[in-house]
Amino acid sequence: MNLKEMVGYKAAEFVKNGMTVGLGTGSTAYYMVEALGKRVKEEGLNIVGVTTSYETADHARDLDIPLKDIDEVEKIDLTIDGADEISSQYNGIKGGGAAHLFEKIVANLSDRNIWIVDETKLVEKLGAFPLPVEVIQFGSGQLFNLFKEKGYKPTWRNNKEGERLVTDAGNLIIDLNLGVIENPHELAKWLDSLTGVVEHGLFLDCVNTVIVGTSEGPIVEEVNRDN
Amino acid sequence: MNLKEMVGYKAAEFVKNGMTVGLGTGSTAYYMVEALGKRVKEEGLNIVGVTTSYETADHARDLDIPLKDIDEVEKIDLTIDGADEISSQYNGIKGGGAAHLFEKIVANLSDRNIWIVDETKLVEKLGAFPLPVEVIQFGSGQLFNLFKEKGYKPTWRNNKEGERLVTDAGNLIIDLNLGVIENPHELAKWLDSLTGVVEHGLFLDCVNTVIVGTSEGPIVEEVNRDN
Repeated sequence: MNLKEMVGYKAAEFVKNGMTVGLGTGSTAYYMVEALGKRVKEEGLNIVGVTTSYETADHARDLDIPLKDIDEVEKIDLTIDGADEISSQYNGIKGGGAAHLFEKIVANLSDRNIWIVDETKLVEKLGAFPLPVEVIQFGSGQLFNLFKEKGYKPTWRNNKEGERLVTDAGNLIIDLNLGVIENPHELAKWLDSLTGVVEHGLFLDCVNTVIVGTSEGPIVEEVNRDN
Repeated sequence: MNLKEMVGYKAAEFVKNGMTVGLGTGSTAYYMVEALGKRVKEEGLNIVGVTTSYETADHARDLDIPLKDIDEVEKIDLTIDGADEISSQYNGIKGGGAAHLFEKIVANLSDRNIWIVDETKLVEKLGAFPLPVEVIQFGSGQLFNLFKEKGYKPTWRNNKEGERLVTDAGNLIIDLNLGVIENPHELAKWLDSLTGVVEHGLFLDCVNTVIVGTSEGPIVEEVNRDN
């Protein structure tokens, strides 16, 4: 069992009967969805899933996990998702899989968020992982130039065919190669204020539990959000 | 000549040879585009237009106004557009024509913005006109509920066929029926911070010149942005 599989299966244990569960996207979340599918089949676990991408929706449907559209549920009890980087302050970068817009919408509606990662994703400060910014196609070249002028070393996200990747919501992704993000809240506020930016990959003050895969087994870290 | 036509033609006089001009959208901007088309044809006016909607692009093309894509120009010298409401502080609500996302992108890139309106659009405080909020389709029902809880009396924007209108960028529009907006900057900041909100119709600290159509002729008001 690799580290991603280990934390995916561990996270699935947090799901209880009757829950509405947000299902993340990516190579780690994949195993969590697989584990939930098994529990539904073998234990008769009774849940409703809300997916964060078409990719995850397809996977969950294949496993007969009952799904609802995000607009059909009142709230989400628990969302389990991967992360591309988690800082010592428990802030994260997500969007390596280009699904961070839907993932953030689902995370914001969730009573509790669990992130599952292998230990290589833990960093002191965010920024080594390129920060994905989802942008409206119209005028995206102007935003690209703005990021360039700011010294943010932007690159276009391409798909496997080498063309610009189009997200599930029909937008493009610009990755910012920042190195270190000293003040993620300030950066998030600035990006939020830009016309044409739909959403960025900074997930701040969001996660409640982090499950880290290590060679010695999964470690569960609870984040205290009251302080 | 009706008031919209009057200000449309008046605004076209501000366009000089060699300019890159942002072309607004809506029933008033329509006449400005028409007037520019005439100047291109009759005076040989040499300009490049950047359009704010597919509708305006079609109109400008019919009139043989040379166009460039927003990502092909370095900057825009002047943008002329309508507005649905202008306050005594010269802030505006736009988006009655559902084009405010592209309009705001173009306005932000413009050295100068002229708004053309008939006198009925001038108000003390914004908010009698419903504030358009462009939202990602995924999870838009949750945003609608949030606005409802806040007492913002949201309504879905429909097209002529009575179905939900889809914008040029593929999103939906929720109109907020606010009555009076006491603090537009605070509201804009809050809307900007919401995941799933692509852009709202508040255009703050943006316009440089307002041309108002009155029964006694057009009035040109310059806005002092240094104070």
